Amino acid sequence: MRKVLPRIDRPAQLHALSRSELQQLAVELRDFVLDSVSRTGGHLSSNLGTVELTIALHHVFDTPEDRIVWDVGHQTYPHKILTGRREQMATLRQRGGISGFPRRTESEYDAFGTAHSSTSISAALGMAVASKLKGEARRVVAVIGDGALTAGEAFEALNNAGVSDVPLLVILNDNEMSISPPVGALNNYLARLVSGRVYTSAKEGMRRILRRSPPLLEFAHKLEEHAKGLVTPATMFEEFGFNYIGPIDGHDLDSLIPALENLKRLDGPQFLHVITRKGQGYKLAEADPVLYHGPGKFNPLEGIRPAAPRRTYTAVFGEWLCDEAARDVRVVGITPAMREGSGLVEFEQRFPARYFDVGIAEQHALTFAGGMATEGLRPVVAIYSTFLQRAYDQLIHDIALQNLPVLFAIDRAGLVGADGATHAGAYDIAYLRCIPNMTVMTPADENECRQMLHTGLQIDGPAAVRYPRGVGPGVAIASALTALPVGKGEIRRQSNAARGERIAILAFGAMLAPSLATAEHFDATVANMRFVKPLDVELVQQLAQTHDLIVTVEEGAVMGGAGSACLEALAAHGVRVPVVQLGLPDAFVDHGDPAEQLASCGLDAEGITASIRRAVKDKLASPPVRTAPGKRQATGGA
Amino acid sequence: MRKVLPRIDRPAQLHALSRSELQQLAVELRDFVLDSVSRTGGHLSSNLGTVELTIALHHVFDTPEDRIVWDVGHQTYPHKILTGRREQMATLRQRGGISGFPRRTESEYDAFGTAHSSTSISAALGMAVASKLKGEARRVVAVIGDGALTAGEAFEALNNAGVSDVPLLVILNDNEMSISPPVGALNNYLARLVSGRVYTSAKEGMRRILRRSPPLLEFAHKLEEHAKGLVTPATMFEEFGFNYIGPIDGHDLDSLIPALENLKRLDGPQFLHVITRKGQGYKLAEADPVLYHGPGKFNPLEGIRPAAPRRTYTAVFGEWLCDEAARDVRVVGITPAMREGSGLVEFEQRFPARYFDVGIAEQHALTFAGGMATEGLRPVVAIYSTFLQRAYDQLIHDIALQNLPVLFAIDRAGLVGADGATHAGAYDIAYLRCIPNMTVMTPADENECRQMLHTGLQIDGPAAVRYPRGVGPGVAIASALTALPVGKGEIRRQSNAARGERIAILAFGAMLAPSLATAEHFDATVANMRFVKPLDVELVQQLAQTHDLIVTVEEGAVMGGAGSACLEALAAHGVRVPVVQLGLPDAFVDHGDPAEQLASCGLDAEGITASIRRAVKDKLASPPVRTAPGKRQATGGA
Repeated sequence: MRKVLPRIDRPAQLHALSRSELQQLAVELRDFVLDSVSRTGGHLSSNLGTVELTIALHHVFDTPEDRIVWDVGHQTYPHKILTGRREQMATLRQRGGISGFPRRTESEYDAFGTAHSSTSISAALGMAVASKLKGEARRVVAVIGDGALTAGEAFEALNNAGVSDVPLLVILNDNEMSISPPVGALNNYLARLVSGRVYTSAKEGMRRILRRSPPLLEFAHKLEEHAKGLVTPATMFEEFGFNYIGPIDGHDLDSLIPALENLKRLDGPQFLHVITRKGQGYKLAEADPVLYHGPGKFNPLEGIRPAAPRRTYTAVFGEWLCDEAARDVRVVGITPAMREGSGLVEFEQRFPARYFDVGIAEQHALTFAGGMATEGLRPVVAIYSTFLQRAYDQLIHDIALQNLPVLFAIDRAGLVGADGATHAGAYDIAYLRCIPNMTVMTPADENECRQMLHTGLQIDGPAAVRYPRGVGPGVAIASALTALPVGKGEIRRQSNAARGERIAILAFGAMLAPSLATAEHFDATVANMRFVKPLDVELVQQLAQTHDLIVTVEEGAVMGGAGSACLEALAAHGVRVPVVQLGLPDAFVDHGDPAEQLASCGLDAEGITASIRRAVKDKLASPPVRTAPGKRQATGGA
Repeated sequence: MRKVLPRIDRPAQLHALSRSELQQLAVELRDFVLDSVSRTGGHLSSNLGTVELTIALHHVFDTPEDRIVWDVGHQTYPHKILTGRREQMATLRQRGGISGFPRRTESEYDAFGTAHSSTSISAALGMAVASKLKGEARRVVAVIGDGALTAGEAFEALNNAGVSDVPLLVILNDNEMSISPPVGALNNYLARLVSGRVYTSAKEGMRRILRRSPPLLEFAHKLEEHAKGLVTPATMFEEFGFNYIGPIDGHDLDSLIPALENLKRLDGPQFLHVITRKGQGYKLAEADPVLYHGPGKFNPLEGIRPAAPRRTYTAVFGEWLCDEAARDVRVVGITPAMREGSGLVEFEQRFPARYFDVGIAEQHALTFAGGMATEGLRPVVAIYSTFLQRAYDQLIHDIALQNLPVLFAIDRAGLVGADGATHAGAYDIAYLRCIPNMTVMTPADENECRQMLHTGLQIDGPAAVRYPRGVGPGVAIASALTALPVGKGEIRRQSNAARGERIAILAFGAMLAPSLATAEHFDATVANMRFVKPLDVELVQQLAQTHDLIVTVEEGAVMGGAGSACLEALAAHGVRVPVVQLGLPDAFVDHGDPAEQLASCGLDAEGITASIRRAVKDKLASPPVRTAPGKRQATGGA
């Protein structure tokens, strides 16, 4: 029976709670989070780790007037629960329900939308500077994990914030975890810092400060010494110009609250190092925070049951990479901190010397791959479509411009379900196909994915295979590796419709399956286009010249997408035929069930059918385009 | 009379030179650089600063077997001169001549192509890891400036390299300069480091090492102590796992050569901190390294003469920002270390509190702007098109997704002349227009640029104005600020051609001027489209319905560009008409004179005319498309 939590509808109510009521609240909040996530699925480990920190922040700071920016934002369930969204937690990450990340449109307590990592210090600094310019006395807090701190943007922000004179508090939520195990020098540094090898004396000072009263004086004294250069900066964060406090126990309200109260009164950039444990308070999650990072629904008493392995595209990629690496010593695998998500667990075990987790560092990952490629290796970069956006310049400048053979295994291309718009891989087709030297492939099923990956490895330049989240249609996978002809699509269904009613559906990637289903209604021809670039221009032309309506279908932004590539080819070759372009709309698509998401965009078989019906009515009903005999609408080559 | 330099055709010849011959070579090389750049134009200050370092590197290392990766690469003229390209320096940055940056296709001594900053450590680490995997004993050196070290990618690479066990040498070429004056906490740290406040004792140790013989023993001893934890890491770079040596005088071969010889023998990540001066040895450049950063041709004895101020688009932007800031206190200006290049010098002087140079940190710049926008400010991010690629994810995830009013003043959109393909702004139209909530404008002249910037500031969401490098057609600039109707183009010339010969040219941005010139040959209609997004669909439709040939012209990649937006609109509205898409080809366009570059892509008046002539012959010669009276080819709305 919860006693405190049910009374909390807004965080201001936390100001008046006693320390023991806050302790009780922590117990109830943790219990609520576990109960709630086990019912809806969602992120668990990270949220169990931020219960006390969230309570302390809302107890000490005056939100929403003070701003809290949560890096990544998947650890904000306690925050959501305390800021009026307790009941809505039942709708988490579902269509029409609340988001799994902070959203400005969802609550005034969500100061900045986050989801991709390492943006919080930049955004918080912007807010703090703006408040200063406007003469508003406001505290701004960024909460960032140790994993997120490895990304370049966080460093850029520290570098800028450290010389600013605004009241910015950066809280390092150090749980020695990103989604994958931690890597890199910074992590080693933090471990040394926590172990006391770097900062023992300062830690002692901190303990004294927390025990004494009034502690502010001592803080001020230390600051003054620091300013005078009497105290040598002892931590990297002090070298950056921050006042560093910590490490303190992030599950101990008696440490957290006094520290935050003191820091709230200090000017300039402040840095609080907090140690938490992912999964804190739920033994199963503590023991395996990776498994409990983002589970589906489960029974909290039993824990997550091993599910029957589904052959996701991710798994197909992971198997392929191992097979390829066994055949070819030049093959290496690179991930920016996404070992599990990208299906690289087995590859790391079997080929540890050829596995490179570079940390949350997409930019570095790509240029690093480029460097390897110059030495004759065949780097495979496993990356989500949405995170490849982080390394767009490196793809252009370091890889494509030098025509280096780097293969991109682009996972989560298209809509991604519960993670919503921030994680959607909607733009890769548009932003990749305009880059010279790129090859861009869209597999229609699991086996094609495998063979396309193999094809990409044969290409002497950059190549990308973009495949969707989750499972494919379930076709058998050939163990043999057979390269596909580059730039060639295939006819999967041939229309026998009468002249004037002949429809050709040009399907890219996963859209082949619903296209084939749709085709039955119209006796349509269906092409599996396979390549966005180089486009099979000959096939596009041929279909346009033998059909009365062309329909392009892709799970990517319509604007500038694969359908536009078809339009460009038709225009260049002077072929004029009605074309319907289907794909993702010019809008950010909210979270929800993946099938519902696709349906909402008209990209399931029903939606495609409806679009074609409309087009048949509109476009084919009007006077047909007449041409000279034998030269159907083709009006000359480019 | 040069004695040593004329004999050097490959760097291996440096191995045998005596110290005094190397000193003489430095004198001659510096003289050659100054003489050469004064004749061709190009980067000067940075190259005068790397003369001794280049000599020392090629003297000590065995290039091309050992790899040197030069960050940014604009400091590689001494390297080019010593690696067989002395005579070709006369063709520097000219069409058909050698590049101003390292290029793998130009020389085997150019291990990795660079131009954008902060990629060198990543690439070099990739090479070092690859060499280790292949069992090759090779040294890899990255030379990076202190400015470039502020970018996130450099930090990501340090974080990864510091835990690697490969022989990688990072040389920090610390000249207290990026193109703009240095900013940020890291720079302050380096200044403290150089002044001895951080590292006095180590510096002493270094001096001893350099004086004694054999020094390797002492190095080894220090390393061993470090490994045992007996020596506390004293610098940030040691915290990252590097063995740090320095700072040493980068113009003193007697310091450089022994240091490099020692470091060459050590395993694991090494860090050498070298102090140089931009412009070293040429008093005028030493006094004003920014002025001499990238001059045109000049007389070395007289120095650069003040040129008559040209009203570049950059200057138009700078004036506009000052005007707007004077009217509206919400306006702030943000630059990622491009104060001069982006025209912000006057703005900084007049509005210092509202000017933010965040360092070479494009990612942070955008999220920082996003944070400011949430607090009601109106941030203007001044950025080159090619560098916006560095912050693509932040544009999508932090700004567009939250529909925050951030204005992007995108300079150097299109081809950029002597800087070549690495700096071309070829892709922004394609990669921006697929993003929801974006407004994308292309001004046709200086005044339109000013009014579009003003328009963008009125829009309650992200907006971009993309304008080319250099001067516009020279139209008068209205001091008044008048917002343009969003999503509306204008007819600039109306055709009176006969039915069957009516041509409409849809010009985007700077392509209006050559389009108007071309139009005279064909009595063509010309539309100044102004907006790529939202596209003036009504105008596109109307022109398509009243003309026999549509020609789209843009200074951007044809694939996915503004012309494709027109094709999409025509397809969606069922209008079928021959369309010719003109723009940048699907290839990286080499450096050269800007007018020549445009001509080579067929984007001058002559080229556009030729393309239209071909199209008229091909497309209009074939049977005309017939339609029902009064409904020209329009076959139904979408």
